[in-house]
Amino acid sequence: MVNDITSMDVDFSKWYTDIVKKAELMDYSSVKGCMIIEPYGYAIWENIQHELDDRFKATGHQNVYMPLFIPESLLQKEKDHVKGFAPEVAWVTEGGSEKLSERLCVRPTSEILFCEHYQKIINSYRDLPKLYNQWCSVVRWEKTTRPFLRSSEFLWQEGHTMHETAEEAMEETMRMLHTYEEFYKNVLAIPAVTGQKTEKEKFAGAVATYTIEPMMHNGVALQGGTSHYFGDGWAKNFGITFTGRDNTLQHPHQTSWGVSTRMIGAIIMVHGDDNGLVLPPKVAPIQLAIIPIAQHKPGVLDKANALYESLKTKFRVKLDDTDNSPGWKFSQYEMQGVPLRLEIGPKDIEQNQCVLVRRDTREKIFVSLDNLEGEIEKALQAVHDGLYERALKNLKEKTFTATTYEEFLDIAENKPGFIKAMWCGDSACEDKLKDATGGVKSRCIPFKEEHLSDVCVCCGKPAKHMVYWGRQY
Amino acid sequence: MVNDITSMDVDFSKWYTDIVKKAELMDYSSVKGCMIIEPYGYAIWENIQHELDDRFKATGHQNVYMPLFIPESLLQKEKDHVKGFAPEVAWVTEGGSEKLSERLCVRPTSEILFCEHYQKIINSYRDLPKLYNQWCSVVRWEKTTRPFLRSSEFLWQEGHTMHETAEEAMEETMRMLHTYEEFYKNVLAIPAVTGQKTEKEKFAGAVATYTIEPMMHNGVALQGGTSHYFGDGWAKNFGITFTGRDNTLQHPHQTSWGVSTRMIGAIIMVHGDDNGLVLPPKVAPIQLAIIPIAQHKPGVLDKANALYESLKTKFRVKLDDTDNSPGWKFSQYEMQGVPLRLEIGPKDIEQNQCVLVRRDTREKIFVSLDNLEGEIEKALQAVHDGLYERALKNLKEKTFTATTYEEFLDIAENKPGFIKAMWCGDSACEDKLKDATGGVKSRCIPFKEEHLSDVCVCCGKPAKHMVYWGRQY
Repeated sequence: MVNDITSMDVDFSKWYTDIVKKAELMDYSSVKGCMIIEPYGYAIWENIQHELDDRFKATGHQNVYMPLFIPESLLQKEKDHVKGFAPEVAWVTEGGSEKLSERLCVRPTSEILFCEHYQKIINSYRDLPKLYNQWCSVVRWEKTTRPFLRSSEFLWQEGHTMHETAEEAMEETMRMLHTYEEFYKNVLAIPAVTGQKTEKEKFAGAVATYTIEPMMHNGVALQGGTSHYFGDGWAKNFGITFTGRDNTLQHPHQTSWGVSTRMIGAIIMVHGDDNGLVLPPKVAPIQLAIIPIAQHKPGVLDKANALYESLKTKFRVKLDDTDNSPGWKFSQYEMQGVPLRLEIGPKDIEQNQCVLVRRDTREKIFVSLDNLEGEIEKALQAVHDGLYERALKNLKEKTFTATTYEEFLDIAENKPGFIKAMWCGDSACEDKLKDATGGVKSRCIPFKEEHLSDVCVCCGKPAKHMVYWGRQY
Repeated sequence: MVNDITSMDVDFSKWYTDIVKKAELMDYSSVKGCMIIEPYGYAIWENIQHELDDRFKATGHQNVYMPLFIPESLLQKEKDHVKGFAPEVAWVTEGGSEKLSERLCVRPTSEILFCEHYQKIINSYRDLPKLYNQWCSVVRWEKTTRPFLRSSEFLWQEGHTMHETAEEAMEETMRMLHTYEEFYKNVLAIPAVTGQKTEKEKFAGAVATYTIEPMMHNGVALQGGTSHYFGDGWAKNFGITFTGRDNTLQHPHQTSWGVSTRMIGAIIMVHGDDNGLVLPPKVAPIQLAIIPIAQHKPGVLDKANALYESLKTKFRVKLDDTDNSPGWKFSQYEMQGVPLRLEIGPKDIEQNQCVLVRRDTREKIFVSLDNLEGEIEKALQAVHDGLYERALKNLKEKTFTATTYEEFLDIAENKPGFIKAMWCGDSACEDKLKDATGGVKSRCIPFKEEHLSDVCVCCGKPAKHMVYWGRQY
């Protein structure tokens, strides 16, 4: 086996790290918990950024850049927030050979800085809404790290908005959650469960947190993105006011929302297989690898080159005319998750055709060179749809229902996946279920709840909500 | 005066800060020396990034992301480098509520991290060249700061490459300097002097530093970008080796090169005037502002809207149909440096025409609506060319020649600008000239030196080079 990856059925975790290393997505650095994103991994991130940024701008958002540091006194302003983040921040205490008079925290998230800025620039309802976003890196000092999924530094975007009314802020919170959902589906080919986080699991300092929770191939959840509603609590705390349409002084209503490089981890764990990475076409750095067959024969390389030239403005194409064998190349581009490969040899040229091979199904499609562009487009869409359907099937097959405590424990122990179960609303039950199962937590209260029973699966008291539960990365 | 900016002739420094604030490019934050880049300023940066990134990729470079932190022990590996940077770095000493066993420096530049990574991934000549770049923020603890020009944190790109031979590395060093030069000219409309830094002024740890030095409107220089050649010294130090074509173990040759958000400062100070910012069309977030005249009259807003719709896919256009007066709008878009405004009123509509007004010259151009796109393109190009010519004239007029020490001091005191003068090659003369003039330093040894005299302008010993001298930001 050229690719030489641990099988996911043998050791999912080893399979994952094999892929991130062998597909050259990242490398470890001498800074504990920080990673190097290598060109191939970063190119995926650039495609993700491009797709998301277009969506943000189409909905009126503007990019800005805030400082990397937050003074300790400023961080202290939001008690719940600081309680949530203080244990995992990095502190700068010396600068320019001198001890600083005040510690500076390396931003774990930037609500604080946005609030400080908004306090200065918001005066009238005419200044609202403020729809800012930033692309940057943030630092959270993690004890146990895993490439892309949990690292002490990671890349992300964080949107921070201010609105005239609570309704508008809530609309924005939902708009961005649904933007993520649409992006996951149409760009990453990843289905997910969406809903509201419980009080226990919500963002430190938010009124409500909404989340998108895709399921990895092994049934484990990944918190894939969150959108928070803050009400006007932070605005009051930071003294952010505006003169309203009725000439009274009011506080604006706030949201924030973010997704990060952990999406690359989701792509790997949702779509990957034992031959390596499988990339959804919309974010694949190479969408199509052209591999000449019997390339020493006259005309083959010329034809391969001509195809490359005619396709490269339309798709992200690579022509591999190195001396490696076709078989070696097939393995190589499978490992890298290239959605389609195009094989062209002497016989194909004679028949004015070529072969497209799908990465996901290995299906071979013989297509005429006369309509190649259209056929490639169709095949890329087919790969996207195929990936989505396969992931949706996995999500459905690994979602179970528990109506009793015993059933819940049994599923948690024996069936990796999500568990749908009723819940009384008490965080004590979340704690108990987590302890009893060794880590199953509430993922979210879905927007469309089902009525599975009348009582909480844990304590038997009247149920308030249906909740998705699961283990997480 | 609506714009209410200090005149640049009265107080250039105040004029500058008035513009950055009133054009809403940036805001101060509570973190000393760090700035907030506001949407309009960040949009300029995004256009700069886009133009540069295209050029980097066209020359085979790949983007990556390296960690934000550098462990102290790793930083110590390059003695000259650490001596240059240690006085101005910020140190993280605590993380996750614990004192760290080793201090981490917040990256002031990333040569060290790239070398550590290259040591792991370079093995054969087949692995070369490595052409990596990253877009990120870096931190240098500055005592005196000024928006965009000098701040404790700034955004930049840093390219770090490794090559098989010294010649190839030197070619790369020059290629990227010339890429910057071409970018400054064709995108920013800024002419500049280019050449080599003296030993005293070169990058800490480099063998040679090449620089691009545009002149601001007031005759002061700005180091606009640098490209460094490292030889194989760092590679030896970091144990980076590869098996060469002749099967011997060799060390690769290294370069690095970078430009930063200070380019936004250069744009302001090269092109701006007493009415505000003047943006070169290629990086202007708004290239064309459509301003309806007598917009209450029937048909005017409809026509303005139709023009907006037909132009927006081709140019970055804004239609301002607010209730503010046209005069107020004119001032507003002048302040923001929008290269062209388009006025359209009832009479224009009757005559199937509109008026284009250039920001730089205020020249009015009456154009037929039948060929509007072409006329706008022409006018934008004319603004670009006009800005470049004006800046080139300034650069030429403010470049003086000194052949004696007295002449040098006289020019330094009375004529703001660059001084061309011969130099013996001794850094003691650089020190003496700097002290005697209160800050005039060597800018660079230009690629095309002129022979102005036989002796050093300072000590009278035989001259080795012609040098450009000047004050700097």
